[in-house]
Amino acid sequence: MSDTGAPPVDKLTISDTIPQSDFSQRVPIRTILTRPDGGAALSGQTLKVGGWVKKGREQGKGTFAFIELNDGSCQANLQLIIYADVAPLGQVVATGTCLHVEGVLQMPPEDKQGKQAIELKVVKILEIGSVDPSKYPLPKTRLTLEFLRDYVHLRPRTNTIAAIARIRNALAYATHTFFQKHGFLYVHTPIITTSDCEGAGEMFQVTTLINEAEKIEKELIKNPPPSQEDVDLAKTDVKGKGEIVAKLKSDKAGKPEIMAAAFLTVSGQLQVETFACALSSVYTFGPTFRAENSHTSRHLAEFWMVEPEIAFADIEDDMKCAEAYVRFLCQWLLDNCLDDMEFMVEKFDKNAIKRLQMVSSTNFVRLSYTEAVTILEEAVSKGHKFENKVEWGIDLASEHEKYLTEVKFESPVIVYNYPKGIKSFYMKLNPDKKTVAAMDVLVPKVGELIGGSQREENYEVLKERILEMGLPLEPYEWYLDLRRYGTVKHSGFGLGFERMILFATGIDNIRDVIPFPRYPGRADL
Amino acid sequence: MSDTGAPPVDKLTISDTIPQSDFSQRVPIRTILTRPDGGAALSGQTLKVGGWVKKGREQGKGTFAFIELNDGSCQANLQLIIYADVAPLGQVVATGTCLHVEGVLQMPPEDKQGKQAIELKVVKILEIGSVDPSKYPLPKTRLTLEFLRDYVHLRPRTNTIAAIARIRNALAYATHTFFQKHGFLYVHTPIITTSDCEGAGEMFQVTTLINEAEKIEKELIKNPPPSQEDVDLAKTDVKGKGEIVAKLKSDKAGKPEIMAAAFLTVSGQLQVETFACALSSVYTFGPTFRAENSHTSRHLAEFWMVEPEIAFADIEDDMKCAEAYVRFLCQWLLDNCLDDMEFMVEKFDKNAIKRLQMVSSTNFVRLSYTEAVTILEEAVSKGHKFENKVEWGIDLASEHEKYLTEVKFESPVIVYNYPKGIKSFYMKLNPDKKTVAAMDVLVPKVGELIGGSQREENYEVLKERILEMGLPLEPYEWYLDLRRYGTVKHSGFGLGFERMILFATGIDNIRDVIPFPRYPGRADL
Repeated sequence: MSDTGAPPVDKLTISDTIPQSDFSQRVPIRTILTRPDGGAALSGQTLKVGGWVKKGREQGKGTFAFIELNDGSCQANLQLIIYADVAPLGQVVATGTCLHVEGVLQMPPEDKQGKQAIELKVVKILEIGSVDPSKYPLPKTRLTLEFLRDYVHLRPRTNTIAAIARIRNALAYATHTFFQKHGFLYVHTPIITTSDCEGAGEMFQVTTLINEAEKIEKELIKNPPPSQEDVDLAKTDVKGKGEIVAKLKSDKAGKPEIMAAAFLTVSGQLQVETFACALSSVYTFGPTFRAENSHTSRHLAEFWMVEPEIAFADIEDDMKCAEAYVRFLCQWLLDNCLDDMEFMVEKFDKNAIKRLQMVSSTNFVRLSYTEAVTILEEAVSKGHKFENKVEWGIDLASEHEKYLTEVKFESPVIVYNYPKGIKSFYMKLNPDKKTVAAMDVLVPKVGELIGGSQREENYEVLKERILEMGLPLEPYEWYLDLRRYGTVKHSGFGLGFERMILFATGIDNIRDVIPFPRYPGRADL
Repeated sequence: MSDTGAPPVDKLTISDTIPQSDFSQRVPIRTILTRPDGGAALSGQTLKVGGWVKKGREQGKGTFAFIELNDGSCQANLQLIIYADVAPLGQVVATGTCLHVEGVLQMPPEDKQGKQAIELKVVKILEIGSVDPSKYPLPKTRLTLEFLRDYVHLRPRTNTIAAIARIRNALAYATHTFFQKHGFLYVHTPIITTSDCEGAGEMFQVTTLINEAEKIEKELIKNPPPSQEDVDLAKTDVKGKGEIVAKLKSDKAGKPEIMAAAFLTVSGQLQVETFACALSSVYTFGPTFRAENSHTSRHLAEFWMVEPEIAFADIEDDMKCAEAYVRFLCQWLLDNCLDDMEFMVEKFDKNAIKRLQMVSSTNFVRLSYTEAVTILEEAVSKGHKFENKVEWGIDLASEHEKYLTEVKFESPVIVYNYPKGIKSFYMKLNPDKKTVAAMDVLVPKVGELIGGSQREENYEVLKERILEMGLPLEPYEWYLDLRRYGTVKHSGFGLGFERMILFATGIDNIRDVIPFPRYPGRADL
């Protein structure tokens, strides 16, 4: 370039002015604080920011206040300086206060430079959403995750829940990006279903009958018939045991009028197979449900699953896809969420980033179930103690999975070809007739992260497997149709989305990695 | 470049070899047929493809067959030529047959060039998934959409349902891309809920009690007590009207043990507001439910909604965001789904592409509800007939919305500031005390596509509005907390995802634009 006084090229890469958000009256704090120059080039600019006070303190005998403001766009807070002639300081310093302000960016005094990022000298308060500190439930900065579960509507304002929300968002977008990049189509499988994926698993029932019964009761109370006996009689007629159960049953059999006795899905797999058998590469990503009365740190009644399904793919392709997907997710977090991951390392799990780096850069170990059992038996013979007995045919317990991935290999492990007796009817029977082409991806910290299989595409074998499992054929006729007409070799897997977040963040309880946890006794909001 | 014999630059932009899918044993047909050179540079390459036969016919007295193969990766079919020495032709020509083959790409004979794309001469059949044409439910090429609703598991194999699936996928990914690009975080709001967003609307109930009752019944049948009378007595005790209703009610009041008497969500808005009041810009995209007994072409019991929520944003910002989002979706389809859109134009709606072009390039008309009513009244005074009476205070009917967007302005229209009496309690009361800061986006073909509002952020006003609507305060205490502690000006909207697909494709019935439609009487699969 010629001597025109233009800024040097490296300066040009940083915009000197900063645009307001397109649809809100603020500049996100992230765009100020995450610039390569630490924001220095912005010094002197006037702009609007908004957010919630993390910490505030009056200084200089009440002449001004320092405030740490967070707007959720990143982990870091922007420091505000507010003088007493701009706002009554007592109103702006309380934790939880919402501030919408206009100010001028300035670098901190020279003695603090390097230690402290750019700060905003407030010139005008646009709006204050105040807080009564004596009533605010989250005034303290360190609260236990367990305590926060009683305040699901306010907990996103804490550093931890906000960081998890950003990591969860990043993993969801990474999921779509990965599958779209590889030509998969996103299919919305149904939530209300009349199919039961596994022929097992407790399902929630969906009904409108209870509404109906309550409506009739209200009606009767409003317009009472001649005598109380008549009311009782009428109620019995509508809501008595026989009526309700009989109606549910007949509805179930003969396609219900408003879907009484339908269920909440436990998996979108069987349904998404119908699209794989037409569009070749598809995936579903949605909520799934279990009505189990489980009170553990690993179970939710409502959780999200990612389930790709691939035509013209066998178990090898399936393992390749699962490995590529998990490694992509890990690399994505390292590329896009490093500040939040550093926070998790500092507060919860010093190995969280190391784990992501290891998984994103390591070829997953692959071994057959039979090899896995041999390794576990060797461990036992060398004195390793497991609570659950090891022998060919068992379902691997969590302790076995952790031994393989954390102790033996210190790496992600894919175990494949499981005994057919412990796996679902739709998994492809291997030529040995003893095992099926199933695979589980095991990772340190959470154990099983993914379960998948090649699907049985042979009509006769599939039908036999359904009967062998003691399941009725009728509900699976549509599934058998996929094998009856133009059957195709295909494979797929399911990733428990919350498990992936537990793995990434190092958080221990699954109730803390989903925005609104549902578990026995709790469905807040 | 020097004379090294390197191909000219314009040739270099097209790869001469074509990679197989990463996770399946095929080259997607899209990557062969949608190249700028029409595939010419690929001539002579050997590769594998897989798909389903659309049409097949034996030729040359049974010496070879032409087959149109589709793998769902695009609307177009790849033509295969299979000679009788490669496969028994009778087995490969039936519509619906799945073929996985290896072959050599070749340009068609010179007299057909320009009319016909590159074709594949099959050298090896890898797998055949055959079809008995006398039994296959979809042998014909033109079937009505209504007929196909009885075959939701097979209908993705038809051109129309496949095109809609690709358009739906594109709109879903465009949605994530738009909001991520603008710094919004994706939040998974709950499906099972104890809140009722509107204080209205029929909700499905979720229960495990019916399971419990059935379990006990089975138990009694297996181990019968001494006499039949005892059985009846025991059953009555468990399942009688009083027991069931009383249990549901007590569970509802005192946080249910397994969430009996919880509901399926009608909207994620109230819950996602908790995240907007912490992370500033968020959105949710998930299934929502209505238990209404509606048998129309516009209603589903289960459908998907996109709901952004923006802090530090007023109704103006909200309209700006809604307009930008809808225009982005339209442009995305023009950029990414033109072949499928051309199919829709040919088969269903000759204006479909024009409509997308118009919306993507037009500034939306904005007018207040009061102005809208004046325009409608003027129309009436000039002799236009509406079925529903026009006067200030009415909820605009579909015919009114269509008049504004299709007749009066021939453009998308945003109507804002509706009478408070016809809108929800959470919408911000305007200074006139008569209207609220609500807005609806109206588009040709479907009418209302988006409904949104600035939310009431004033604690006292919101509380009063809840009471005014005759709603109880207790269930909304958490929602009031958002205004009690650090309240913030915020706005949001909801887009009915299926409505957007109806708008884009010109399809008339909503049951055809969702993979697995749920409506009264039907929850297939």
